[in-house]
Amino acid sequence: MKIVIDAMGGDYAPAAVVEGVVDAVNDFGVNVVLVGQKGPIEKELQKCSYKTEFVEIIHADQVVDMHEPAAVSIRKKRNSSISVGINLLNDPQYNAFISAGNTGAVVAAATINLRMMDGVDRPAIGLVIPTLAGCTFLIDVGANTDPKPQHLLQSSLMAQVYAREVLDIENPSIGLLNIGEEASKGTDFVKETHALMSKRLKNFIGNVEANEVFTGKCDCMIADGFVGNVVIKVSEGLMESAATLLRQEIKKSPVAMFGAMLMRSRLNHVKRYADYSEYGGAPLLGVNGIVMISHGRSSPKAIKNAIRATIREVEHNIIGNMLQELGD
Amino acid sequence: MKIVIDAMGGDYAPAAVVEGVVDAVNDFGVNVVLVGQKGPIEKELQKCSYKTEFVEIIHADQVVDMHEPAAVSIRKKRNSSISVGINLLNDPQYNAFISAGNTGAVVAAATINLRMMDGVDRPAIGLVIPTLAGCTFLIDVGANTDPKPQHLLQSSLMAQVYAREVLDIENPSIGLLNIGEEASKGTDFVKETHALMSKRLKNFIGNVEANEVFTGKCDCMIADGFVGNVVIKVSEGLMESAATLLRQEIKKSPVAMFGAMLMRSRLNHVKRYADYSEYGGAPLLGVNGIVMISHGRSSPKAIKNAIRATIREVEHNIIGNMLQELGD
Repeated sequence: MKIVIDAMGGDYAPAAVVEGVVDAVNDFGVNVVLVGQKGPIEKELQKCSYKTEFVEIIHADQVVDMHEPAAVSIRKKRNSSISVGINLLNDPQYNAFISAGNTGAVVAAATINLRMMDGVDRPAIGLVIPTLAGCTFLIDVGANTDPKPQHLLQSSLMAQVYAREVLDIENPSIGLLNIGEEASKGTDFVKETHALMSKRLKNFIGNVEANEVFTGKCDCMIADGFVGNVVIKVSEGLMESAATLLRQEIKKSPVAMFGAMLMRSRLNHVKRYADYSEYGGAPLLGVNGIVMISHGRSSPKAIKNAIRATIREVEHNIIGNMLQELGD
Repeated sequence: MKIVIDAMGGDYAPAAVVEGVVDAVNDFGVNVVLVGQKGPIEKELQKCSYKTEFVEIIHADQVVDMHEPAAVSIRKKRNSSISVGINLLNDPQYNAFISAGNTGAVVAAATINLRMMDGVDRPAIGLVIPTLAGCTFLIDVGANTDPKPQHLLQSSLMAQVYAREVLDIENPSIGLLNIGEEASKGTDFVKETHALMSKRLKNFIGNVEANEVFTGKCDCMIADGFVGNVVIKVSEGLMESAATLLRQEIKKSPVAMFGAMLMRSRLNHVKRYADYSEYGGAPLLGVNGIVMISHGRSSPKAIKNAIRATIREVEHNIIGNMLQELGD
């Protein structure tokens, strides 16, 4: 198995990426291919201790900026670490691609160079969300912001396979994110999607409201890419603001500061609950290849966890399983 | 000034409503009209001490259930506390209406019985969101789930008046909730809205991402009713889940429990930050009358705070000010 990694992607690249890769190589014994500017990558690798035969570098000149429009990156940077890395997946010796870089550029490069899977019209990005009951697989968190109902049906089928194979959930339940539980609620688009999902999905539990995202009411939750993206960004922003506020409040009282010290390990557990790096990445589904998008602020731990998740995707033949589900 | 209150609305009605009303009467010296079933209301009032000349009861037989479809409530329950209460606003001696009842029924009754303001096509519900910098007025949180760009422009103009007059923010800035900051981001609908807002609004700061909802980046934030509703429900759900998790974690360790005890007053501050009852309600904007929708789980404090907010709306002639802004 060979996992390809965009060494230039993310706010702390290439240092954080290389460090995470080395940790993964040492712990999982997996072969990795670092794609990007050879000089900086080698410089980072020199700081680390690892079995050199497990790590390969493939040079790519160009780097896509985090906020560059995807179309521009595709047209003008054919030799970027993203395009070169994605293209490797057309060779069967390379099994998966991970990037913490520009999400739009990864989606565009994967869609163009790997093409869509049979039975899928549009890509979708999933995200494993920690809940009180375990986890919920939310899809789509931003790839397809203006979908048709059948796109959501296709994403639902893929999500159920992902939850079953990668998250180990037997017969995963699926809910449609809506602003009310009744089938009559929401926009025309959501109502049509509800009707289609009711007809075609196994274990569809109907509409689910956004306050259920973190309770684990369903194993998979479906939304259009605009709404799904809003869900994860609101959550991220709220946790950050609440943490900032808590720190400010604690500083106002020495007694509270002492109390916080005593609570530290428990508070850290709560913090970890909302920490993306624990989960490593967001799988891009619908293309002919295993692609994982990591958070732009990915730490070495996040990169390592993303590698762990893609290994599981490869071992469980996620693409083959999805194709079978979509063909049924 | 006379504030009309739906005594039968909310999960804890009429007890919580009556208690909040009595507190408001005692503290603000305001005249209130309780609308609903006379017997139960009088029974609750008997438990309280207040100046009786400030409280009037207007009997309404019927009660709209919390989850009843709005259309049914309007057609079959003409004598509900919501319909009777809203209708009072057509008489100039009654200045505002508050309900913690069925949101859809309140929106429908207000739209039909008070009619839309000149220059506004659709109603919108705003919500004051606490932020690190003060507050942000988010609109629409659920009245109009499938709006046109001009509806969002109209809501923006009303939101700026509300922020200026009621929240005391001079020259309020306004942002459009989107999944990226660039004008090229988002759905066609959002792009069109962006173009229209750029042309027509003062102090429009462009697109704002959902992780900025709680940072106070802008004074008013505009979204369609579907997305706005998802924002507040995700936030509510996340805070509840995080609090549940924190309690579970603390219980695992006696040291942490002692630490939490020392931190209690500071933790309560953070809790209050996310507490709807501090703000009292969500103004329904766009109709010819001051209507405030309170959370279904409103406590007496929430009802009292809602009364305080409507008093401010009346004193600042919010309807007249909005009509002027819309006519300009």
